[in-house]
Amino acid sequence: MSLRQTYTKLTSLVLKAHYLRGINGVLEWDQQVVMPPKSSDVRGEQMAVISGMLHDLETDSSINEYLQELEKSDLNELNEYERKNVYLIRKDYDKKVKVPKNLVEECSKLSSTGFQCWVEAKKESNFSKFAPILKRWIELRKEIAALVHPKLPVYDALLDDYEPELTTDQIQSVFDEVKKVLVPLIAEIRKNGRAVDCSILKDTVTGFDVKKQEELNKRVATEVAQFSFDTGRLDVSAHPFTIGISTTDVRITSRFRNDEFLQGLAGTIHESGHALYEAQLNPDHLGQPVSQPLSMGFHESQSLFWERHVLLSKSFWEKQWNNIRSTFPHIRDSPPEEIYQAANALDFDNLIRVEADEVTYPLHIILRFEIEKGLFDGSINVDDLPTIWNQKMKDYLGIEPTNDSTGVLQDVHWSSGAFGYFPTYTLGAMYAAQLASLPQIDEWIKKAEYGEICKWLGENVHKKGSVTLNANKLLEEATGEKLNASHFVKYLTEKYNDVYKLK
Amino acid sequence: MSLRQTYTKLTSLVLKAHYLRGINGVLEWDQQVVMPPKSSDVRGEQMAVISGMLHDLETDSSINEYLQELEKSDLNELNEYERKNVYLIRKDYDKKVKVPKNLVEECSKLSSTGFQCWVEAKKESNFSKFAPILKRWIELRKEIAALVHPKLPVYDALLDDYEPELTTDQIQSVFDEVKKVLVPLIAEIRKNGRAVDCSILKDTVTGFDVKKQEELNKRVATEVAQFSFDTGRLDVSAHPFTIGISTTDVRITSRFRNDEFLQGLAGTIHESGHALYEAQLNPDHLGQPVSQPLSMGFHESQSLFWERHVLLSKSFWEKQWNNIRSTFPHIRDSPPEEIYQAANALDFDNLIRVEADEVTYPLHIILRFEIEKGLFDGSINVDDLPTIWNQKMKDYLGIEPTNDSTGVLQDVHWSSGAFGYFPTYTLGAMYAAQLASLPQIDEWIKKAEYGEICKWLGENVHKKGSVTLNANKLLEEATGEKLNASHFVKYLTEKYNDVYKLK
Repeated sequence: MSLRQTYTKLTSLVLKAHYLRGINGVLEWDQQVVMPPKSSDVRGEQMAVISGMLHDLETDSSINEYLQELEKSDLNELNEYERKNVYLIRKDYDKKVKVPKNLVEECSKLSSTGFQCWVEAKKESNFSKFAPILKRWIELRKEIAALVHPKLPVYDALLDDYEPELTTDQIQSVFDEVKKVLVPLIAEIRKNGRAVDCSILKDTVTGFDVKKQEELNKRVATEVAQFSFDTGRLDVSAHPFTIGISTTDVRITSRFRNDEFLQGLAGTIHESGHALYEAQLNPDHLGQPVSQPLSMGFHESQSLFWERHVLLSKSFWEKQWNNIRSTFPHIRDSPPEEIYQAANALDFDNLIRVEADEVTYPLHIILRFEIEKGLFDGSINVDDLPTIWNQKMKDYLGIEPTNDSTGVLQDVHWSSGAFGYFPTYTLGAMYAAQLASLPQIDEWIKKAEYGEICKWLGENVHKKGSVTLNANKLLEEATGEKLNASHFVKYLTEKYNDVYKLK
Repeated sequence: MSLRQTYTKLTSLVLKAHYLRGINGVLEWDQQVVMPPKSSDVRGEQMAVISGMLHDLETDSSINEYLQELEKSDLNELNEYERKNVYLIRKDYDKKVKVPKNLVEECSKLSSTGFQCWVEAKKESNFSKFAPILKRWIELRKEIAALVHPKLPVYDALLDDYEPELTTDQIQSVFDEVKKVLVPLIAEIRKNGRAVDCSILKDTVTGFDVKKQEELNKRVATEVAQFSFDTGRLDVSAHPFTIGISTTDVRITSRFRNDEFLQGLAGTIHESGHALYEAQLNPDHLGQPVSQPLSMGFHESQSLFWERHVLLSKSFWEKQWNNIRSTFPHIRDSPPEEIYQAANALDFDNLIRVEADEVTYPLHIILRFEIEKGLFDGSINVDDLPTIWNQKMKDYLGIEPTNDSTGVLQDVHWSSGAFGYFPTYTLGAMYAAQLASLPQIDEWIKKAEYGEICKWLGENVHKKGSVTLNANKLLEEATGEKLNASHFVKYLTEKYNDVYKLK
């Protein structure tokens, strides 16, 4: 077989796995959005069948044979995307085959018992009930990391699953910069910030008709993040999500309350940012790892870019104000500036990460990052978590949980052993701020030239998929420098000094 | 391995195939109802992946090994359903493995080129363009029949795929009885039938709001064929269909016009009859052949039972009239008898099978059956089809197509070589009439005790799945006699003598 033939054989196996994942995506979407309620058992069985087939395909020994064939050849015949693709297929394959079946099965079981235990422990607000699960997960993750990445520190290995090639030290360094500025900023706003009037966003009398919101959201998603209903859908589900079934089938969901309209709109814009990434992946390498989103953090950067730097910008409200007021004529007539302020009001007394605003959110994440790091370098014991958690909340945010349920037990992630995931939320926010700081992007946001932004993101981020292998390299190519926390810090400081009239 | 263990191993492979078919069902439903329009290429690839995996699973040699193990044992340890299940798994397996891969592939290719060719030939109204496809299909079907059922006449073998164990001669015999009565009945109605006023069904001014129709249909489907939205959905699609993903997930679709409401309602009730069958299959043998619908004809009998014997009955309109008039208050107030007559009006001058009423429909089918039979016993040449078709239309229905497009080329079935399928439509109508002729069923229909009917059908038809192996046996158990055309003939004659005031 020629090199090209071997490459084609390899990539057609990988493409088949892409279609299987897409099928799983359809099943998942269907379950969340339209499935009859009493069919979840059958759906579970169907998804298990697909997972089993996907696992067989992804660990098929012929993948290894084709890879070995290619690895001993000179790959100059292949282009850069193809060479990186070979590298990434090897990386994925090794991650999968290096973990023995009994460990995979234990993880799967521990995920479901862990979830059940977390639900109960949270309900009872009793961390000690959940602690044994957490301890077992830490052991398991260490064992797996030693098999897959024997040369890396454990937490670096864990991070690699979500944010390839980024290290604990690099994250520590940027998070320290953020913490250094945000902790005093929050304290200052608490003390000297003016009161922001949010009443314009609420209406418990007439309310905001949910069907009308849905129509408005569809229009805004199309106009802003160029969401296409030829290759996508927008539906309602309990929690907003995006599923990229393939580049031609990207589905988002949102949810709408009757007493305000910002939550639904923010959900829609957030998800349509994810969707744009999935839809603009390079179709020349459809379904190949090189044409997959680079990392969890970069995926989040795309949703946060649209949600924070576009939706929460002054120019957005200036441009969209008439559109929104013509949908809901009972909103009181006021300058767009007023709704911009209201939309950006902070909520300092919230203990819960998922409800946090963009200024307090990073501190929720830094707290979790520091704890995870400590759990894996041995400097923190599981049993001390509630105390450490509450102390950090007090130090960073000036508030303290009164129980485990609103403290250390609030998030589901650890119940499935997903350590290393939390940092990607704030990394994403930092990537987004760094992209938004480019002069041309800033200009396009101000002029509401959203089509230009989509095109630029397509060329400089989406089409590149995973070819750069890591986020620093992609940022360097797109913005001229590696991850630099100062953009994020500057964005937040300037914006909230203005909103809260501090300076 | 014990007999029980072998049986369990065998049935878990078969169950996995059931889940895969269910996944295909989700993909199909999604494509017809909600998929973004530009994703059909990807969907095609996804469905090809599932088909390939399903084929591998269904022809897995371990199925044969387990079967051989069971077949050499005394199966008394198994119950009747399990023994029949072993028999049916063997039958399915042999059908699949006896056809060599090159023939399977030629069928698959000929289906797609055949479909394309049929579309063009129909558009040009040019049968000779399509004739070569038909000739090749006949050769292929003969070749496959000789491999799968070497002892059966070819057309019997073809029928077995749709209506197991029923023979050409048996069908010929019942169809002759039907033809003998319907041809003169139609001629008589044409000549002496009174005019039936259908204007009550139409409204081109106010129209029938499609959303309101959908709500009405959901209500009627629930009340009449006990359709459950906990285990099913009703949506809108270009052509109504039912997909049984599993017993807990059965989805139907209908379509609604603005200028009348009967088409939508008939579609919904028809599909909810199919759905009830799928939902009431025996869950103790979930996904096993013994717990699958018995035949195409029996499936059709269940939809036609509800559509014709319930929806088109006098008692239905008496009971539902207020319900319908409260949804559409602008329908003119008149006795339910008037709408019953209108709903049952015949349309003699229609050349097209899919638009035909219950009296002319069987003759469209008998014509096709006679032609298919002749094509396979060598008494009819492909090239003579347009002439034969038009002559039979004249003889049976008193109308003659003026071109191939509305004549011999009107149906898609032959483009995929689906010979033996057509008879099941009228067999289904006959099964339905035989079930409806039972005194207790007749009584329940008259009293609108639909729950009782659903229960009876569940016990006597649905739960039995395929355990009786053929329709005659099931009819015998359920009604006390094998297929007897006189029930169908009597039902039509009496009903239309009344509607057209002939006697």
